[in-house]
Amino acid sequence: MTGRERGAVLELAGNTPVVVLVRPQLADNIGACARAMANGGLFHLRLVAPRDGWPQPKAWRNSSGAHRILDAVTVHANVADAVADLQHVFATCPRPRHIVKPVLTARGAAAELRAICGRDLRAGVLFGPERAGLDNDDMAQADVLVRYPLNPAFMSLNLAQAVMVLAYEWWMADEQTRPRELMTNETRIATKGELENFLAHLVDELDACGFLRNLPKRPGMVRNIRHFFQRGEVTEQELRTLHGIVTELSIGRRQRGRAEPEG
Amino acid sequence: MTGRERGAVLELAGNTPVVVLVRPQLADNIGACARAMANGGLFHLRLVAPRDGWPQPKAWRNSSGAHRILDAVTVHANVADAVADLQHVFATCPRPRHIVKPVLTARGAAAELRAICGRDLRAGVLFGPERAGLDNDDMAQADVLVRYPLNPAFMSLNLAQAVMVLAYEWWMADEQTRPRELMTNETRIATKGELENFLAHLVDELDACGFLRNLPKRPGMVRNIRHFFQRGEVTEQELRTLHGIVTELSIGRRQRGRAEPEG
Repeated sequence: MTGRERGAVLELAGNTPVVVLVRPQLADNIGACARAMANGGLFHLRLVAPRDGWPQPKAWRNSSGAHRILDAVTVHANVADAVADLQHVFATCPRPRHIVKPVLTARGAAAELRAICGRDLRAGVLFGPERAGLDNDDMAQADVLVRYPLNPAFMSLNLAQAVMVLAYEWWMADEQTRPRELMTNETRIATKGELENFLAHLVDELDACGFLRNLPKRPGMVRNIRHFFQRGEVTEQELRTLHGIVTELSIGRRQRGRAEPEG
Repeated sequence: MTGRERGAVLELAGNTPVVVLVRPQLADNIGACARAMANGGLFHLRLVAPRDGWPQPKAWRNSSGAHRILDAVTVHANVADAVADLQHVFATCPRPRHIVKPVLTARGAAAELRAICGRDLRAGVLFGPERAGLDNDDMAQADVLVRYPLNPAFMSLNLAQAVMVLAYEWWMADEQTRPRELMTNETRIATKGELENFLAHLVDELDACGFLRNLPKRPGMVRNIRHFFQRGEVTEQELRTLHGIVTELSIGRRQRGRAEPEG
C-alpha cells in the first residue's frame, strides 16, 4: 500500500491534543471530524463507544484523504478509559448547568492547550454525541469546559463543525500570518518616487490635452487626482501599465496635434 | 405555517455580510452552509449558478432548522450580478497565484467586514465550488482575497467548514466573552478568610489525630497542604463540603478518643 493510497501524509507536529468523540452516531461525521482535524494540524482521534461500531468504511470515504488519522483511531468503552493516560481533559459543552468548573472559549482553550502541550503534558478534548452532547458524568471527567461563543439564537452546531472550530483555533494559536498583506507575487509595491513619476507623466498629458486648462481650479484638481492614486498600495508593475495607458490614450491627440499645424 | 415549522427564528442583527456560494455543487453543502451561517449570526445567502438548480429540498433537510436563510436565498447567473449592489467584495481562496491583491486571514477579514458593515456599507464574501474553488475571473471581481491559515499539508477544506470558520470569526469579532471564567452558578468563589477557616479546621484535626506529630517537619507539611488548597479557585460551597468531609472523617477517632479513657 503506497502512501498515496493511504491518503494525505499528515505529519505529526510534536505533541498535539487528542480529540475524543464520545458515543458518536454517524460514521460520516467521524470522517468529517478527521478531515477537520487534519485542516487544523491535529492527529490523535479516540472514539468512546461509537454507536455503529468501528471501523466504518463511510468514515474513510468522508474524510477527504485524512486516512492516517482514521487508521490510528483507538476505541474505548468509556470516557475514563479514553482519558486514562492524559494529564488534562477539556470538555466541549454548549450549555453547562449547575456545574462549578472553569469555562473557556474556543480561543481560550486553544491557548491553554498550546501551553499544556508545550510543557510536554498530554491533553484531550471531549466532544459529545450529535444529538445530546456530553452528559453530566462525562463533564465531571474534565478539568475545564469549553463553550464556543456563537449565535445564542441558533445553537445547533454540527459535530464536525465543532471539531473544525477547535482545530482552527489550535492552528491559529501558533500562527504568524499577518491579518492583511498585499500579495504582489512577481512585482513589488511601488516607491513614492515611482508614483510621483507617473503622476508627473499624467499631469503633463492632462495639461497638454487641456483637461487642466481652468488655471484657478488646476491645483485642486491635481490634488484630487493624487488622492485617488495614493489611496491604495500600487505596485511597480501596475504603474508601468498606467504609464502605458496614459501614453497610448494620448497618441491620437498628439498625432492630431502634429497634423493640425499642417491642416 | 407557524414560525416553528419554518425553523429557527434567526433575527437579522443589523447589517451583516452576504455569503455568495459560486457554482455550488451539492445541496447538502448549501444546507450545511446555511446552518454554519446561522451559528455565526449571518443571514444573507446568494447562489451563483448552482449546479443542480434551486430550490433543492435536501438543502432544507441538512440545515438543522436554518430554513429562513434558505427561504431568502437569491439565485444569480454570474458573480457580477450577485455582487452588483455590494460595495465591498471579499473572495475566499486557498492558493492564489499571480494575483496582485490584498490577502486577509479569516480573522483579519472578519475585523474588516465588521468595520465595513459598521459604516453601513454592504459587503459580500465569495466561496468557490467544492472541487475547483474560485477561478481567476471570480477573484478579479473581489477587492481582497481571504486565505485561512491552516495546515499546508492538508488544504482540503469542506465548503461548509470554510463558511463556518468565517461565520465564527465574524461572531468572535464582536464577542466579549472572557477566554477563561469559573462558572460558579448558585455559589461563588470563596474568600481567603473562608479558605483560612477551613485550613485551620483541617490543621486542628490533623494535630488531634497525630498526622502532624513530627514537630520539626510540621511547618513544612502545613505549608504543603496550604499550597494544594490554594492552587485553584475554590467555591464557598466546596469549602462547606470540605469542612463536612474533615468533620465526618474525624468522628470515629473522636468517639474512640472519648471511649479510650473509659476502656
